[in-house]
Amino acid sequence: MSVSIISDWKSFGGRQKVVEHASSTCGVPMQFAIFLPPGDGPHPVLYFLSGLTCSWQNVTEKGGFQRLAAELGVAIVAPDTSPRGDEVHDTPDRWDLGKGAGFYVNATAKPWSEHYQMYAYIVDELPEFIAKNFPIDPTRQSITGHSMGGLGALVIGLKNPGKYRAISAFSPIVAPSEVQWGQDALGAYLQSPDEWPAYDPTHLVSQYPHRDREILIDQGKADSFLDTQLRPQRFADACEAAGQSLNLRLHEGYDHSYYFISTFLGEHLEFHAQALHG
Amino acid sequence: MSVSIISDWKSFGGRQKVVEHASSTCGVPMQFAIFLPPGDGPHPVLYFLSGLTCSWQNVTEKGGFQRLAAELGVAIVAPDTSPRGDEVHDTPDRWDLGKGAGFYVNATAKPWSEHYQMYAYIVDELPEFIAKNFPIDPTRQSITGHSMGGLGALVIGLKNPGKYRAISAFSPIVAPSEVQWGQDALGAYLQSPDEWPAYDPTHLVSQYPHRDREILIDQGKADSFLDTQLRPQRFADACEAAGQSLNLRLHEGYDHSYYFISTFLGEHLEFHAQALHG
Repeated sequence: MSVSIISDWKSFGGRQKVVEHASSTCGVPMQFAIFLPPGDGPHPVLYFLSGLTCSWQNVTEKGGFQRLAAELGVAIVAPDTSPRGDEVHDTPDRWDLGKGAGFYVNATAKPWSEHYQMYAYIVDELPEFIAKNFPIDPTRQSITGHSMGGLGALVIGLKNPGKYRAISAFSPIVAPSEVQWGQDALGAYLQSPDEWPAYDPTHLVSQYPHRDREILIDQGKADSFLDTQLRPQRFADACEAAGQSLNLRLHEGYDHSYYFISTFLGEHLEFHAQALHG
Repeated sequence: MSVSIISDWKSFGGRQKVVEHASSTCGVPMQFAIFLPPGDGPHPVLYFLSGLTCSWQNVTEKGGFQRLAAELGVAIVAPDTSPRGDEVHDTPDRWDLGKGAGFYVNATAKPWSEHYQMYAYIVDELPEFIAKNFPIDPTRQSITGHSMGGLGALVIGLKNPGKYRAISAFSPIVAPSEVQWGQDALGAYLQSPDEWPAYDPTHLVSQYPHRDREILIDQGKADSFLDTQLRPQRFADACEAAGQSLNLRLHEGYDHSYYFISTFLGEHLEFHAQALHG
């Protein structure tokens, strides 16, 4: 497998790298960022899945996680949000479908199905690639994300109970089947509405064995997407019905931006570090 | 004076704002970012002057200062690096002269002199505007900056001994008269080489009364501009000759990026907070 180091910066005693590799799952080269804390490792690893329009760049530059990740000894991986490149189908007039908006699903509808296989990429191919090429302990993984990436973290975490030690999310889309962003994306990427529940946390939480460890969700109350696209209470209700422990924290005055994420990302790192080192 | 709030985010319990105001000094509208820590104030204030090609955005988004600034109770102001707008003269083919590259001087050569008055803007107009419009204590100011902004911080701090309680810099241009970036900029903005020493820290440090408080400078040893444009040892020698206490720290492996700045910005905040609260 070809590896190409695009960038490599020293940060808080660790290394912040940007890597490109040939993805057989997505059929194109994919980029991701990885922060390696100081020391030889193997380090436990937290995946941060980003939201609509984002790439590895947003949380890596604006999240401010490097200080605490270095201190806690946790590697942070920030994947891209879709396949990229000229041969990848896109809807250039839309920011919520196509490139930058993969929704972490395995597309089954043409023409999306050729490259949009983000679920398999995040769950299988990327962790294998990372375990082979970096000083990472693949038995200690954890997952979080923002908005569309919060959806991805909940879906992937819930569906793979042995694979991630903890799950958290920032302002996640929790009920994609019921909101415009999700209906548009699942409607485009998937052949049939029968496939939607497999990517909907409010359905999944009752389908999979619940976890002893609580799920942590932070949500800003001044988030302009709160009522139309996010609706965290839907997930809280589903968790309660399923017996899944959830810590949903609503924060006065905070919006959907990285100023919100960075404010609470440190507490998520501590939450995940406890699970990863425990 | 007209004030326009461009953005206003909650961050770490404080407010991160972007403001536009009519600048009579530069003759155009100017934008800056201001972080206000929690509480009613009046807060002491640290100015962060940015480097070539930057605006308020770089340190505000990538610096990660909000957490500690909130904790220490220090407001952070990030001004722009030049006047902007269609009527402002520029050299579109160059990133190191014109817009984004004001070098914090009062230009005397035409056509630059019409708008490029960044020294007076930073020293006089902006602090007055901020004191009138925000809960800031104008008697407790401090200054830092990066690269071209490190130059600005040293020049402005040295030339105004009563005005700033402490001075620090990241990878500053310390001897602009002797390096390409500085020679090009001072040569363009100023009518005569006789005016150059007034903007050169290696000259200024012997011209103005030295400060009891040491100046703090952090510099990455893997910075690709170190030998050609920065040369901090020139300033260290000038400080020693002038009896000015300096703490110049060289860091193995760090470059010129915000991954370097953010690693050490916390220690600069603590350095300034001690002076501002002392």
